[in-house]
This record gives sequence, structure tokens and C-alpha cells, in this order.
Amino acid sequence: MPLTLDTLNQASAADAVALLDGIYEHSPWVAEAALAARPFRTLAQLKHALCEAVSHAPHERQLALLRAHPELAGRAMVRRELTAESTGEQQTAGLTACSPEEFARLQTLNAEYNARFGWPFILAVRGPRGTGLARSQIIAAFERRLRNPPAFEFAECLRQVHRIAELRLNERFGHVPSRGSLVWDWHEQLARHSDPGYAERGELTVAYLTDAHRACAAEIAEHMRASGFDEVGIDAVGNVVGRYHPQAGAQAARYLLTGSHYDTVRNGGKYDGRLGIFVPLACVRELAAAGRRLPFGIELVAFAEEEGQRYKATFLGSGALVGDFRPEWLDQLDAEGIALREAMRSAGCDPEGIAALRRDPQHYLGFVEVHIEQGPVLNALNLPLGIVTSINGGRRFVGEFTGMASHAGTTPMQQRHDAAVAAAELVLAVHSRARADADSVGTVGQLEVPNGSINVVPGRCRFTLDLRAPTDAQRDAMVDDVLAALGAIGERHGVQHTLEETMRAAAAPSHPAWQARWEAAVDALGLPVHRMPSGAGHDAMKLHEILPQAMLFVRGENAGISHNPLESTTSDDMDLAVAAFQHLLNQLAGDAAAHP
Amino acid sequence: MPLTLDTLNQASAADAVALLDGIYEHSPWVAEAALAARPFRTLAQLKHALCEAVSHAPHERQLALLRAHPELAGRAMVRRELTAESTGEQQTAGLTACSPEEFARLQTLNAEYNARFGWPFILAVRGPRGTGLARSQIIAAFERRLRNPPAFEFAECLRQVHRIAELRLNERFGHVPSRGSLVWDWHEQLARHSDPGYAERGELTVAYLTDAHRACAAEIAEHMRASGFDEVGIDAVGNVVGRYHPQAGAQAARYLLTGSHYDTVRNGGKYDGRLGIFVPLACVRELAAAGRRLPFGIELVAFAEEEGQRYKATFLGSGALVGDFRPEWLDQLDAEGIALREAMRSAGCDPEGIAALRRDPQHYLGFVEVHIEQGPVLNALNLPLGIVTSINGGRRFVGEFTGMASHAGTTPMQQRHDAAVAAAELVLAVHSRARADADSVGTVGQLEVPNGSINVVPGRCRFTLDLRAPTDAQRDAMVDDVLAALGAIGERHGVQHTLEETMRAAAAPSHPAWQARWEAAVDALGLPVHRMPSGAGHDAMKLHEILPQAMLFVRGENAGISHNPLESTTSDDMDLAVAAFQHLLNQLAGDAAAHP
Repeated sequence: MPLTLDTLNQASAADAVALLDGIYEHSPWVAEAALAARPFRTLAQLKHALCEAVSHAPHERQLALLRAHPELAGRAMVRRELTAESTGEQQTAGLTACSPEEFARLQTLNAEYNARFGWPFILAVRGPRGTGLARSQIIAAFERRLRNPPAFEFAECLRQVHRIAELRLNERFGHVPSRGSLVWDWHEQLARHSDPGYAERGELTVAYLTDAHRACAAEIAEHMRASGFDEVGIDAVGNVVGRYHPQAGAQAARYLLTGSHYDTVRNGGKYDGRLGIFVPLACVRELAAAGRRLPFGIELVAFAEEEGQRYKATFLGSGALVGDFRPEWLDQLDAEGIALREAMRSAGCDPEGIAALRRDPQHYLGFVEVHIEQGPVLNALNLPLGIVTSINGGRRFVGEFTGMASHAGTTPMQQRHDAAVAAAELVLAVHSRARADADSVGTVGQLEVPNGSINVVPGRCRFTLDLRAPTDAQRDAMVDDVLAALGAIGERHGVQHTLEETMRAAAAPSHPAWQARWEAAVDALGLPVHRMPSGAGHDAMKLHEILPQAMLFVRGENAGISHNPLESTTSDDMDLAVAAFQHLLNQLAGDAAAHP
Repeated sequence: MPLTLDTLNQASAADAVALLDGIYEHSPWVAEAALAARPFRTLAQLKHALCEAVSHAPHERQLALLRAHPELAGRAMVRRELTAESTGEQQTAGLTACSPEEFARLQTLNAEYNARFGWPFILAVRGPRGTGLARSQIIAAFERRLRNPPAFEFAECLRQVHRIAELRLNERFGHVPSRGSLVWDWHEQLARHSDPGYAERGELTVAYLTDAHRACAAEIAEHMRASGFDEVGIDAVGNVVGRYHPQAGAQAARYLLTGSHYDTVRNGGKYDGRLGIFVPLACVRELAAAGRRLPFGIELVAFAEEEGQRYKATFLGSGALVGDFRPEWLDQLDAEGIALREAMRSAGCDPEGIAALRRDPQHYLGFVEVHIEQGPVLNALNLPLGIVTSINGGRRFVGEFTGMASHAGTTPMQQRHDAAVAAAELVLAVHSRARADADSVGTVGQLEVPNGSINVVPGRCRFTLDLRAPTDAQRDAMVDDVLAALGAIGERHGVQHTLEETMRAAAAPSHPAWQARWEAAVDALGLPVHRMPSGAGHDAMKLHEILPQAMLFVRGENAGISHNPLESTTSDDMDLAVAAFQHLLNQLAGDAAAHP
């Protein structure tokens, strides 16, 4: 008999702790602390309360929790750990069938790991889908994490403990994140399509209008049709568009616009963009299966291009919907010299038809987008979902300091014009200035002394600046301060500089009413409402130009790494995202009912 | 009738100013201030007093001095400036024969220069030999200096003013730096020999044991013979060795050992090393011409290899004299796969004979070396000569910070492990720690975020460290502090680091008695005694292992740039170096007389 929240909420304190026995390895104090927050409205709320109990514990207690876990390398221990973690699917994790070489490798890694960190390596071997990681994935994770800074790895181990607990709780409560798993599987399936040269290495790359890209479009369209969309098509720019009609008699009804992109960066992740296609798709699938219509229609667009990987122009998919597609872009060439116009024609797109894709805002309620966070914030806070307050505005610069190259031995410190020292001061000025704001970020991503020698005072140093903030005013104030610092640094060191602004993007603050809908949806799941800016650009930035918009972020595993094969999110988090999207639809249906 | 120092010293204040009229363009205040230091023992002392008068003047007065100079581009003005500067050799400077294109280029440069700096471009067009620069050299200097930081270029213009004044003073006093010019010409002549691939581009490269290298050895040997050395030969390692015998009846007399190297770096300068060969050569030439013998012999060695350009091993020439030649070096390969042993054999050297080159210190008084400074110190102080207190000891490291690469937009400042920020802190820690010492230098010459992207928080940053100080204790204390800072920085940013020590060289402090001889020699020339460490390594470092040693530095033009075709020094400065060396010989002769 699965446990229920009612039973847990009504049990005595001691009984309640017993009901959660074994969820956190040999550490009943976690449950004790978390249960103070009873009653729990949702399983997600209970999970989060347990995470919070660990987060608020002293370091020694957290360390004891980690040390309560068995080592991964002992076969018997592994079997035991898997048994404790899972009954149904332990075989697929496969550690019980290690080869002698793999076992030896694991033992070596264990020894190195313990020597370096002083606690056992902890990994939720059932993985993000709950169905088990391959042995090669486990060993790769081990090797990768061995290189983490200790404080970071400590936090990562605690996150793995929480994931193990999540899977154990799912079993104890008989909870199956079925919609999340469906969405997870759609991503996995779509990731079969990858461009030549990458596919062979098992890497995911889907550049605009390649064969893999067209195969993705066809597969998404097929999912839309199978899920009950009324109209499905691929438009002139390559977007896959599905429309789910409003309820009968609502011919004048407007549509909710939603979606994200299906192209990827080179060797990218499986979830970037696609999550914003498949989460709404799962919701429409449920509506259609239940024969339910809403007082408004749903238009889901899988945008063909957002990443700017193949052509210099970006946001081609969402840009087309707001009328921002410039004819001169058609002359841009890719790395192989193929013009965009030619690529579009041979992929069956229609350059002349793009202008007609512009949407009339009067026909739409607004735009919402679900996206994987692509950052470490939610992962660090043990929160599955976050609400975006604004897509940060950004400015980018490419620059160079030019001082005087000179002999490192013979040039006294007072007589130097060291371009690298100037650049170092700039790096720190950017870092401290960005830290001084809430939600600003500033990065020197490229830094190089060209042809530097160990024994030559640097005469040149190249650098880049990437400065972002939730509002254009905050961004520009930061840029002004950084540029003032740059001038003062050059002056102080007798070093010249060049600086070229290479990008300027306006901030796209979320529309308050739409942001509030996401907040209500997250709150209804029993989760804390965490508001945060989006540091990355998204299709919502483009739709922002014509519609109110707001975004929902889903936690990324592995510290939110993105544009990387390690990008990951769990079927549990996806399940919560589907629930939140459904809640937003229900709110809108209520709104629509309230304000017909 | 040339002016004499006696006349100047005895003239009234007003008359004395009049005697120096026109030396500093429309600026009698320079002479007025300098003449307060009368009487002058030497012309060099007068020249230095004039420099000092300008150095101590307020900035506005210095600027007025620069602005008193005519622009280089007006042909008439150029002619006038040349007339004022020189009567005998103005034609060779050749600006009067500018092509229309060259004239137009000069006018453009003048306009840009004035717009950038606000004063006219000033260049002593008669150059370091006093015989005139080519038009192409003038235009190249103009283009190069247009890129200087303003404060630096201001100082450079004042230095050019002093050089113009020096040439005018030479004429007014009928002073011809004939021994300096002879030495200058020997350098120019020797620089005809350059390795294939460089010679064609007009670049100077003489790597160990190439055809150009052997031609240099032959030419130096020929100069030695022609100058009156008693024994001249090329030894087993390729050193050219000349011995000038002591006076008759002093069979048991010891020898003064001196010399420097004749190999060069790639595309190097003409004076690095060779000055330490030709200055003593000029002295012996005078002794022999006068039929004068000293109570000691002079052994001048032109070392075959110091720069380590062709093989990994360095100081092969001077190392052989102290018994530091390791047989395993013979197996080292150059870039073309030619083993050192093979290169030596085919150049007529004798690997088996190297061990026998070791000198017995009992047969020598000590070692002295004259070298171009290879740094900006003397140039900035308007001093032709400097006395070396120590050849700095150095340690070098190659390292890398490893943090976590992450999205520049989505990673909050507080959650970063930015390897470039860590490296920036290290660069500044090195800079400020080295500044805190007298005569220490610390440099991060290589700095690079490998494969950095404008929008990615750097996960890695490579760096080098080069730390030098006049004593090993001072060097090691600095290294300890820098390594402590490195650890603390890594800790603070959650960033790992690797560090490998790639070089450790002991300091070679000058022998006090020998340093005192150079000081007495410089003082006798009427010049301030300026003591300074050598930041670069020299052959004297090797001889230091078996003999007392001390070095004399000669000012380098162009801020002392070295390992570069712009390396330069004047025939006037060379003349003073010859005089200083001669003075040292006379001191030793006196010593020898006093202590037979």
C-alpha cells in the first residue's frame, strides 16, 4: 500500500519519522526537521521541505549524511544501495554486472575521490529518468566530478542525495511522473536526429535547415498530430505550428501563443528549447484526450532557428512572427558558402512567404515559454521551477589593451606599460561592478596575450566584455561604470585601448499579469515562488515586441550546464512543469470565463 | 675654432649661455640651469648637466622646448633643422631629397602626430652613428612612435632633443667619438652575416654553428689579429679566443678575462653580446698600436653560444670555460633534427675537446663584461653607462587555473568559479608584490583563456610566472609570497590550479672590488655612478662560478628595446664604454704595479 500525504500529515511525530525511514540514509534527523512544516499539500512540497532541512543543517551534519552512504565500488554495497533506492528498476543501472576492468576502475576512482574529498562519491544511479544510468555514464560522471572544486562537489553530493530520496519517495507514495516521463522520452527520441559529423560521435547538433533539422520538424509535427492538434503545418521559415482550437462557439476567441526552438548549438543539450515545445504538447495531448476545449485556442510554435549557429542572423523563427526578418539576411553565407536563400529553398521553405508570418497581436492573449534554466540557480536552491522576471538586456564588446612589450627581466616595475596588468584590473573591475548590482552579470570570457612569452612584459592583451542586467537602465549604468574604469586603468598604466561594441540587446521584462500566472501555478504545486532574471536570450525576447510575455524556468542538473551534452533535467521536474503549464491554462480558462 | 671646456668653465654666466646658444632650440634656459654645475671635467658631464636641467624643469617648460622645434614634414623646415643640427653630414639624412609620396606621407604623419600628442614629432635624423638615417627609417620611426602612450612619447621626444644637442655639442667642441664609431662600424659590418630565411628579409639571426655563425667567428678572429692580439684561435666549442700578452718579464702574470657572445636571437639586435667583444677589442687595438703592454694579459673571448635559440642548452660558450658542459647535451636536437654533436663536428668543432676548455681561476684576475642594458633604465635617466650590482636570480613557472566554465548570462556572480578572475587576481598580486621590493621584477607574460568565448565564464586560464631579484633570498621570499597568494586566490574562488617550475637560476652578485673599478671608471668620465641589477642573464653568470666578476651596462636607445631589430646604441655611448674599459685597465695596471 503506498503511503499517502494524508497519512503522513496526520501521523504522530514519531510515526511520521518512521514513515519516512530510509528515505535519507541513516539520517532520521532530516525527516524530523522537515516534518515540522506539516501539513504538506503536495509531494513536491514534502520533497522540498526535506531538502531545506538538509540545507539548514550545520556542515558537520551534512557531512555525516554523505558519509552515511556506502561506496559505489563495492559490488555488494552497490547492490545494497540500489536495493534501498529502487526495487523495480535496479537491473537497468547495471552496476551489478560490472566487468572486472570496470570494477577496478571504480575502485581506483573511489580511492582517489576519498583521498581528495574525504567522503564517498554519491550518484543517483537511476538517473534523470529513474530508469538507470549506463555503467559508462556512471564512470564518466565519477571522473568528471573528481575534478570539481571541493565545496562545489560537496553541494553536488547533497543534490544527489536529494535525488535518491526523490526516487525513494516516489516509490513509497506510489507516485509515477508519467507526463514528465512522456516529455523526457520525446526529447530522447528527437535527439536521434543530429547533423553529419556529429551524429557519428554521438553528439547532438541540429543546425538550421539541415536534414536532421527537417527530420526534427517532421517528428514534432507528427507528435502534434498524434496529440490532437487541429491544424499542424510547417511555415515558410521552417517553424512547426500546431493550433488547438477553442471551444465551440468561441470563433472570435483569441489564442495563447507558446513554444520554443528545436535547433541546437554544436554538441549541445537535448532540452534547450525543446522543453518549451514538449511541455505544452503534453498539456494539449491531455486536453484532446479528455475532449476538453478551452475558451481560447492554443498555438504552439516549434521555432526553427534561435541559436545563430549556421548563419550570423539569429532568432529567425520567432523573429518571423514579429515581422523582424530582414531580406538582406537571405544573402548571408554559412561556413560552406551556402546562402540562406538557397538553404531555405532546398529545404522547401519559402523566403517570399516569411513576411506573411507576422502575427497580429489582436488575435493573441499573450506568449508564454517554458525553458530549461541553463544556469545553476535552481539546482543550487533545490527548486524544480523558477519564474522569470525579465530576460536580461545585454551589451557585448571586443577590445584590446596596447602597452609596450619589453624584457621581463630588465624592465623595472615602475617603467612598465603592461597590457596584461591593465586587462587584469579590468577583469576585476567588471567582476566587482557586476556583483554590486542585484541580478547583473559581467564576464570577460576571452582574455589573451597574443604570442605572449614567459619572459616578455605583455605589450598587448585582448579581451571581451559581456554585461547583462534585468533592465536596460541597470545594464547601461553598469556599462558606463565599466567603461569609465577601462579609461582610468589605461590612463594609470600608460596603456592604450580599443573597444568595439558588437551586440546590444534590450531587456524584456515579464508582463506582471503573466508572471503572476506562473507564480500562482508554482505556488499551487506547493513550491516556493522563486523569481529570477533570465541571463540567456530566448524566443520570448522577440515575441515581447508584440505581446505580453512571461517565462517559466525548469531546473537543470549538473549545475545547470547548458550548450553541452551534460545538460539534463529529470522526468520529475518535467512533470511539475507540465502541471504548472496546465495550471496556467486553467487560470486563463477561469479568466476567460470571468472576462468573456 | 672649436669651443673648449676651459673656455666654457671660465666664461661669465652670460657669455657661457651664449657659447651654448642653439644647442637647445630657442631655449637658453636649459644652458642657464646647467651652467650652475660648472666647472665641467668632461664633455660627457656637460651633456648630462644639460639633460638634468631639462629633467628638473616643469612640464610646461619641457613642452615649450618640444614646441620650439620645427615640424619634420616641411621640406624647408627640415633643411633648416638639419642645418642647425649638422653642417658636415646633413646630405646623408636625405630628407631634402624626399619623393612626393614620401613628403605626402610625412605630412599625413605630422598631422596625425600633432592631433594625437599636441607637439611636433622630434627625431635626431642623424641617428646613432651621427651619419644620418635613411628616409625609410625616419618614416618607420614616425609610424612606430605615433602608437606610443603620450607620456612615454613625450619623454622620447625629450631624449631626441638631447641627442640632437649631443651632436651639436660634438661639433661645437670639435669632439669626434672615433673609437665609438669604430666599434659601431664593427657591429654594422658583423651584422651582414645572418642565417638563411632571415638574411633575405634584412633580419639578423645568427644561431649556433650555422654558416653565418662561422663567418662571424672568422671575422671576429680577423679583427683580433688585425688589432694586435698575440694569439687568436677558435676553440672546441666555437668560442673565438684572443690573448694579448702581458709585458715582458711578467711570464707568471695572470690574465684579465673578458668578453661576451656573438650568437643572436631570431630577428635580434646588432649589439646584444657583441658590444662586450668589440669594446675590449678597441682597447687592445689602442694598446697594441701604442706598443703598450700591461702587467697582466688580456684574454678576450667571443662566446659562441648564449641565447639558447638552436638547442635547449644555453651558455654553451661560457659554460665550457667553467666546466659546465654536459655530454648528454650533445644528443639534443635542433628544430631540423640535427644533433648538437653532429652540428659541432660539421662546423669543425671538437666535442671531445670541450672539457679541456675549463679555465683554472688561478691564472686569471677576474672577469668583466660590457653589455647593452636591454632595458629602459639608463635611457630614461639620460645616462650612457650603468654599473651592475648583481645579475638577478630568477624562477619561472607555468600554471593553469581550472574553475567551472558556465553560461555568462545565467551564472550569477556569486556562483561562479571563474578561472580568468582568479588569474587576474594573480597577475595583480605578482605585480604589487614585485613592486614592494627594490629591484625585484615579476611578470605574467603568458595569459590565456583557452578557447574562450565572449559569452562563457572562463573554466580555464593558463598563465606563466617569471620572478627575479638581485639575491636568491629576495627572489625566494617573493616566490613564497606569490605562491601563497596563488593558493589563497584558488581557495577564495573555488578554483583549482596546477603549477610547474620550469627554471631556477641563481643570482650572481658583482664582486665588490670589481664593481668598484667600474664605478671609478664611470666617475672619471664625469658621469653619475648609477648602480642597477641586471634583469637579464649574461655570460658573466657562468664565469661567476669560478671568478670574481662585474659588468658595465651601456644605454640602449628606444627605451632599451632588445631582442628586436630596433635595439640601438650610439657611437657616443660606445666611445664612453671604451673609455671606461680603458680606465679599468689602467686601474688594474696601477693595482698590479702597487701589488706586484
